[in-house]
Amino acid sequence: MLIEGGEGALSDIFEKTREEFLLPDGIIYLDGNSLGAMPKKALARLQEAASEEWGKMLIRGWNDANWIDLPDRTGNKIARLIGAEQGTVMVGDTTSINLFKALTAALGLADRKVILSDSGNFPNDLYVAQGVVKLFGADAELRIVAPEEVDAAISDEVGVLMITDVDYRTGRRHNMQALDQKAKALGIVTIWDLCHSAGALPVNLSACNADFAVGCSYKYLNGGPGAPAFIYVRPGLADRIGPALSGWMGHEAPFAFDLDYRPASGVSRMRVGTPPVLALSALDAALDVWNGVDLNLLRARSIELCEIFIEEVERRCPDLQLASPRDAEQRGSQVSFHFAEGYAAMQALIADGVIGDFRAPDIMRFGFAPLYVSKEDAREAARRLASVILQKRYADPIFATRSKVT
Amino acid sequence: MLIEGGEGALSDIFEKTREEFLLPDGIIYLDGNSLGAMPKKALARLQEAASEEWGKMLIRGWNDANWIDLPDRTGNKIARLIGAEQGTVMVGDTTSINLFKALTAALGLADRKVILSDSGNFPNDLYVAQGVVKLFGADAELRIVAPEEVDAAISDEVGVLMITDVDYRTGRRHNMQALDQKAKALGIVTIWDLCHSAGALPVNLSACNADFAVGCSYKYLNGGPGAPAFIYVRPGLADRIGPALSGWMGHEAPFAFDLDYRPASGVSRMRVGTPPVLALSALDAALDVWNGVDLNLLRARSIELCEIFIEEVERRCPDLQLASPRDAEQRGSQVSFHFAEGYAAMQALIADGVIGDFRAPDIMRFGFAPLYVSKEDAREAARRLASVILQKRYADPIFATRSKVT
Repeated sequence: MLIEGGEGALSDIFEKTREEFLLPDGIIYLDGNSLGAMPKKALARLQEAASEEWGKMLIRGWNDANWIDLPDRTGNKIARLIGAEQGTVMVGDTTSINLFKALTAALGLADRKVILSDSGNFPNDLYVAQGVVKLFGADAELRIVAPEEVDAAISDEVGVLMITDVDYRTGRRHNMQALDQKAKALGIVTIWDLCHSAGALPVNLSACNADFAVGCSYKYLNGGPGAPAFIYVRPGLADRIGPALSGWMGHEAPFAFDLDYRPASGVSRMRVGTPPVLALSALDAALDVWNGVDLNLLRARSIELCEIFIEEVERRCPDLQLASPRDAEQRGSQVSFHFAEGYAAMQALIADGVIGDFRAPDIMRFGFAPLYVSKEDAREAARRLASVILQKRYADPIFATRSKVT
Repeated sequence: MLIEGGEGALSDIFEKTREEFLLPDGIIYLDGNSLGAMPKKALARLQEAASEEWGKMLIRGWNDANWIDLPDRTGNKIARLIGAEQGTVMVGDTTSINLFKALTAALGLADRKVILSDSGNFPNDLYVAQGVVKLFGADAELRIVAPEEVDAAISDEVGVLMITDVDYRTGRRHNMQALDQKAKALGIVTIWDLCHSAGALPVNLSACNADFAVGCSYKYLNGGPGAPAFIYVRPGLADRIGPALSGWMGHEAPFAFDLDYRPASGVSRMRVGTPPVLALSALDAALDVWNGVDLNLLRARSIELCEIFIEEVERRCPDLQLASPRDAEQRGSQVSFHFAEGYAAMQALIADGVIGDFRAPDIMRFGFAPLYVSKEDAREAARRLASVILQKRYADPIFATRSKVT
């Protein structure tokens, strides 16, 4: 990867994007892979959408503030970040709901009703697939293999391939392009979950020829807690789908109030109910932080941050075992370590001002959002982690028993 | 209906609730049945949720600001307004998605796969049912009769009754209790759409023994544009449902990350993806406006406002034909008139500061949200409507051609 201008230029770029965020004092935030930090623009836009649009325009906001276009407008901004053509991404609902739309559409398109996925997938995706399989009856099957066995399991028995690009625990990446190519050669419909990819690294859906992709906007895209999710449908494919979730906002003419559903053309038929205007407004502004950001430089910065952190932690804490791939190319924008007392250790680290998170059974997880995490953050976080581990501060019972939902 | 204290007391109550809203100067807002006005508390809470919670707590907000409980907390506040027990209402997703959950659950529970609905239902509900019927295959059927024929069409061929309580165009009410009783006697699973009922009039789901109810929170509940919707499941019934939309937030232990879906107990299994925190926070505060509001007094006020409006309009504009039931008991909290030039007339009226809306083919629709619409608003709106009609101001081409999405 060529980075023009070298390290100095990279730092300049991301010092500038860091300025776009409101980061609390005294905190090193390495959990942007769970909930992205708040862009200043998102807060301003949210306030405006509430007080000036909802408050003063009232119902007229649908026209005067163009609320009705928010799902497409935000979709087009996300499209650039995932290598998708304009007009192929719609924002609304949650990742789970969008995955349900993609899975039901894919099973409708596929002759074979076998969904192939892997045990490294985010469990929610498997839950959603289990619900879909029950709806489709005895013919349908969810086949789960180990992540490293996905390639070998792609066969002419499979109808739908449903894979999460980056593993939520370890950050391990699949080879999207190779898996998609093999699947498509066998007539398999492909669905990618980009929750830990979008905004974390360059994705090229067009080059992969992927059929569907879904992902959330509250991680690396910084849309806010519970921000709406996106769905991508390959150009030309959407018009062959009869949506299982057939709602009025995906109707060809929502305000004609005909009694029969007729889907809108293209990805718009993936809309269902009334768009979440306030959340979409915040997201719309949050996405503007990406204007002018080169995703190859973002990737270079992400790797730089992760490498610094790994090197510093391993040098100081030989007891921690790297759970992420050592090869940067095979890793997303996060670093995870195995540690038996990981839960308590993470609580102690959070108390010390470094926010990462824990995933059962023993994963300490650190996300590096290049837009606002600095190299000094990575170094200082490693130092504080080492201090928690070496001084065994995780042994304080206050940390082991602290209740935490996420 | 007994109203203690008479008209004076009623005015006092609703003058106080009106103070809770930010209403734009010079506007009479009669479209709260489409998008409710903004409670001051909702704006303050939204700003706090963004800047203090998302911005400063970041991921810790799930615990420290109790984001994770928002779907249940807001659900319990809505429960009181629809006559439901605590713990039976969940807020999240859209009305369409929640209706899909209810319909798939109901078809799973019902032996007979015939869904009965009526042509006066909001078309979206019919679209959603059409999608569900396709998923369930050849056995399933959506049977649509005229609204006045629903009672006669309830038979032992029907498995699911799906009805919207208040007609979105005319405000005509069904007799929920009678229809539900007849349906239940035949073993029919019942689903009520309360979009135009919740917060508009007293609803008593417990007394009706209804199985499911859904509704939005952005109309009379004032949650904001595209605010999340609610779903009610009768006590004891939820645990018999295998959700078609089986997402991690409806899992018994979302953060155990097991590979198999096991539904949470009760209405919590109707959760799917990550809750929309910002929108739920605004709604949470918006619902506090209802504290201490007696729904029987609300209903009395609603009828009073509608009667004033009907009387004033009919006296001044003999050309307008009442589309709503004349009997107040058979009407929701809205008044509609037929008028051939209704679209242009509504645009002219909006230009004159009175906001109602238009529904094809010829319905001028006026919603009376008792929390913030005053008797003087009702009288003045009628005067201005009469002026538009009598002076034929709708004939100005600017109004007939104005494009409007809602």
